[in-house]
Amino acid sequence: MYSGGYAGKVLRINLSNSTSREERLPEEMARDFIGGAGFGIKHLFDEVKPGIDPLGPDNILVFAPGPFTGAGVPCASRMAVTGKSPLTGAVGMALSGGEFPTEIKYAGWDAIIVEGKADKPTYVAITGKDVRFRDASHCWGTLTFDCQQIIKNELSDQNVRVCCIGPAGEHLSRMACIINERRAVGRKGLGAVMGSKNLKALAIRGTDTVAIGSEDKYKTARTALLMAFKDSPVLYPEFSHHGTPMVTDLTGAMGVLPAKNWSATGEFVPVEGIGRDAQATRKVGREHCHECPVGCSQLKLAQTGPYAGILTEGPDFETVYSFGSVVGIGEVDPIIAADRLADELGLDTISAGVTIAFAMELFEKGILTLKETDGIDLSFGNAEAMLRVLRKIAFRDGLGDVLADGTLAAARRIGKGTEKYAMQVKGLELPGYDVRALKAHGLGYATSYTGADHCRGYAFQEVFGVPIPWQVDRFALEDKGKLTIWNQDVRTATLDCATMCAFLLDMAVPATACQNTATLMEAVTGLSFTPEEVLQVGERVNNLAKAFNVREGFTRADDTLPERLMTEPLRAGGSKGQVLRRQDLDKMLDEYYSLRGWDVKTGTPTREKLTDLRLAYAAAALRL
Amino acid sequence: MYSGGYAGKVLRINLSNSTSREERLPEEMARDFIGGAGFGIKHLFDEVKPGIDPLGPDNILVFAPGPFTGAGVPCASRMAVTGKSPLTGAVGMALSGGEFPTEIKYAGWDAIIVEGKADKPTYVAITGKDVRFRDASHCWGTLTFDCQQIIKNELSDQNVRVCCIGPAGEHLSRMACIINERRAVGRKGLGAVMGSKNLKALAIRGTDTVAIGSEDKYKTARTALLMAFKDSPVLYPEFSHHGTPMVTDLTGAMGVLPAKNWSATGEFVPVEGIGRDAQATRKVGREHCHECPVGCSQLKLAQTGPYAGILTEGPDFETVYSFGSVVGIGEVDPIIAADRLADELGLDTISAGVTIAFAMELFEKGILTLKETDGIDLSFGNAEAMLRVLRKIAFRDGLGDVLADGTLAAARRIGKGTEKYAMQVKGLELPGYDVRALKAHGLGYATSYTGADHCRGYAFQEVFGVPIPWQVDRFALEDKGKLTIWNQDVRTATLDCATMCAFLLDMAVPATACQNTATLMEAVTGLSFTPEEVLQVGERVNNLAKAFNVREGFTRADDTLPERLMTEPLRAGGSKGQVLRRQDLDKMLDEYYSLRGWDVKTGTPTREKLTDLRLAYAAAALRL
Repeated sequence: MYSGGYAGKVLRINLSNSTSREERLPEEMARDFIGGAGFGIKHLFDEVKPGIDPLGPDNILVFAPGPFTGAGVPCASRMAVTGKSPLTGAVGMALSGGEFPTEIKYAGWDAIIVEGKADKPTYVAITGKDVRFRDASHCWGTLTFDCQQIIKNELSDQNVRVCCIGPAGEHLSRMACIINERRAVGRKGLGAVMGSKNLKALAIRGTDTVAIGSEDKYKTARTALLMAFKDSPVLYPEFSHHGTPMVTDLTGAMGVLPAKNWSATGEFVPVEGIGRDAQATRKVGREHCHECPVGCSQLKLAQTGPYAGILTEGPDFETVYSFGSVVGIGEVDPIIAADRLADELGLDTISAGVTIAFAMELFEKGILTLKETDGIDLSFGNAEAMLRVLRKIAFRDGLGDVLADGTLAAARRIGKGTEKYAMQVKGLELPGYDVRALKAHGLGYATSYTGADHCRGYAFQEVFGVPIPWQVDRFALEDKGKLTIWNQDVRTATLDCATMCAFLLDMAVPATACQNTATLMEAVTGLSFTPEEVLQVGERVNNLAKAFNVREGFTRADDTLPERLMTEPLRAGGSKGQVLRRQDLDKMLDEYYSLRGWDVKTGTPTREKLTDLRLAYAAAALRL
Repeated sequence: MYSGGYAGKVLRINLSNSTSREERLPEEMARDFIGGAGFGIKHLFDEVKPGIDPLGPDNILVFAPGPFTGAGVPCASRMAVTGKSPLTGAVGMALSGGEFPTEIKYAGWDAIIVEGKADKPTYVAITGKDVRFRDASHCWGTLTFDCQQIIKNELSDQNVRVCCIGPAGEHLSRMACIINERRAVGRKGLGAVMGSKNLKALAIRGTDTVAIGSEDKYKTARTALLMAFKDSPVLYPEFSHHGTPMVTDLTGAMGVLPAKNWSATGEFVPVEGIGRDAQATRKVGREHCHECPVGCSQLKLAQTGPYAGILTEGPDFETVYSFGSVVGIGEVDPIIAADRLADELGLDTISAGVTIAFAMELFEKGILTLKETDGIDLSFGNAEAMLRVLRKIAFRDGLGDVLADGTLAAARRIGKGTEKYAMQVKGLELPGYDVRALKAHGLGYATSYTGADHCRGYAFQEVFGVPIPWQVDRFALEDKGKLTIWNQDVRTATLDCATMCAFLLDMAVPATACQNTATLMEAVTGLSFTPEEVLQVGERVNNLAKAFNVREGFTRADDTLPERLMTEPLRAGGSKGQVLRRQDLDKMLDEYYSLRGWDVKTGTPTREKLTDLRLAYAAAALRL
């Protein structure tokens, strides 16, 4: 049995009848799934029946930190939030850092499961074992930062940690996120799931500490980890100072920074206006997640014109893409303004920006006219238009209602063959890496159980040239199936389940991530793991998530990419001429399914594979 | 010697050399000035030489709560902030409630005096006796709510209390205020004084308690006060529920709600769009100052159009006037949006709104054209224009630079005889009571030592019909000098010096305010006071403040009103035909000066009067 790390208790909250109960965390749960996304996906598979409406009362939301969260391990204050995604209909899972994840553990819980639907706007205040269902009618309609403050004041506790939704979640935008502090559980529309449950916020406060299985082993492991951070050749001072916006320059130089709804990658040149150095001119501070020695999160302050005085935590690289290059904006300040506004409205910055880019392309093509845009000039690069449409999306006002559910739903509503301009996979909008010239990224977007998701198997080998587990050619197709599986399984286990920050893997322990997790597991929880067993947790979770999707009707045909990327070669820049043709993708998919031990024709896990992974119940559920 | 209430210590902070020191609070200071504005004005008179630049290093700022603050007395968590006003050149003093005032006492101080000028943006973090001067370069440019949060995070203490300035104070707008939480030390441009000192914020935290002189007497007095609140015929449920916006309906019905830069009082009819019931539709909560049983401060959430989702604490009645009727706006939501924006920018809502109204009248008269307004259509009622100009004022951008120092400075800069449209006294913009039909209010605006200030002697007899100390006719001139002196002295002593909320006097103990303060003084501080002695503190402070102004060169000629109010009778509404002619004002002034024991010709305190009030040093300073 685990002797530390886990509280051993899961809190189940039923909003339909305002009750809560404590459940035990079985050891096999810890052993097979570690925590975080593992716990979430296991509960999702077991408890959510096929075909339910993600915005109905039968969906659940699982808030799960990991075994190291709150235990003093650096970079572990993260939580996974899991439910059926209203944007994709597939597994919806996203993570966030900050202080909230640690507070869940301090309150004595390994996970919080929210089910049912409240009959009126509600927030749930959790103080250790004490769970109160409180009227949130007065908070309904508030922006996320105001909401957090109202609740803190109401509970007379400025140290309570709150995660909440904004107007976007209330209006069931399928791009709505969940905000805690200034951070987002960003993607897959989980904010709309909260909205559909009339759940405005969770507030949490605890006074427990997290037990450590072996203090001696823990001290050794922690010291080794901190040394690995310190020794990282890329982390200090560059990355720690600049954060992810550094990637803008890199992808720009490589010719893989998507621009103007992916129609102008390599051609849109003002990277210098939005890249590392431009961002640095706006930096006024940074924030650290709980126990983080890096502090990659930057406070930036807009300085010019109508944006002067607007502060944001961010924008990270993805937001520089989504409110910058992909909408044709080449200046920092409007990106800062849009990032802040999206956080306050509770909108995923990637999906929102890409959806606006989609609308902009339709406007430039004359498919949307001023009549459909409520009189707004939606030309690429129009920052004021972007900000106005963001608000409209969150409130489902006019054009905003058309766009509120993302590019795929909007294209289907608009018709006229516009689906080809919807830059999404499985309904999830593409992150900011042009996969035409980053083939493993392409395969990752196509096969991630969440849709186009850079966080589910990020191919850092292609972007940063990291030669782990081997050196790769980003244009090549060879072995990209094997590489993608490694990326997906390692990252799922060490980052999504053990809920540690991606920078741990990317920069501190890239070659030994599973060993690191195994060592920490033994030190913190007392459970013995080999690196291979850690990796297998990643494989198990990817298989179970895929099984969930298969049960929902997803097939190999859904593991695809937008037509544009398979038919329009890049016309300029450092990746000129590159394209990811359908036959190339098919070739990579064949390799991928085959190495996964899945049925190559359908892209479905086999009974043997699932059984090998102690997922026989999933095979049974799929009637394999 | 005092045995409770006072900490006995004043903190003096010198920004020029980053030092601080503790000074003793002499008993005669407590006895002669009680606290709050009394302490501030005493220090101002003693320490600020005549003729200094209010925005230079020789000005001071005194943050002073009162003896009851932090002692558990309801409605006493208030502080006066005093300095030489950059807007008027006279005494600048304004109060604010909230939690900050109590925290000053918890930190062990009766007052904090800030002097000198930092050589770079600075904030001062005070934890009890520990005073740290911290770099605020990164906070410079931030909005007030963000600034507070940045500092709390930086100090790793969510319970630290912060008051700060926004961009308006940094850009030395003479209408800049100081914000703590969502509350303002609103008027007279004291935010610009902080800005001129490179002082972005004060952060304070304490763990002391405030001693009580006599627990038995204190319990009796506190109970009696709470009973008086409970028994108030107007306080519950109406006022407690609606707050000051109730006054909108009342003044509208009386025909004294100024509209369109005071050109349309009684004619501008959509009071129903901005009054009590309209406001109530936006109410989502309320906030209490520390230990306040009333909670008049309302949280309101805008619901429509581009304002949806904007939350504010307010608007109070004055802001309903300044961002509503006086700028010709008849809807609640833009007022909410402007109130929030002004708080974030750190702008006094009254002065900012009246200054925009002034510009709107000039625009409608063709004196300002689109060329001077940066292309903005400044017609009365244009809410978007108001919001854009608010931002421009705070950043001194274009037209905003012309308006940033208030109506009088703007009129002088614009020329063309526009001073007659500047609705101000001594440079301070008029609050929302049309004094043409509220004669004591008129005399109050003319004689207040701060300029046109409804808080320095509010004639509640004229608005609410309160027959204390006697029944009055609001149109009549008779005895308005005597009434104004009573209002000024009672309110100065019981509200400004004892730093208790105006509603204490207006609603709980209108007839016995001085007795109430005397009783509390004995119970809390152990100092014996008669009601007459309390009243004399008010008289003393009004005399000393006047002496300061006289020393600065103010004369009877400055105790006047805008020409419009003396020449243009009201054309419609419940006060149709009323005007406050110059000869009427002069008649009231004669009575006022005479009863004050001042020289009627010059409006100057006499040596005898000052000496009687133990202010011989002031007489000497004035060479009387």
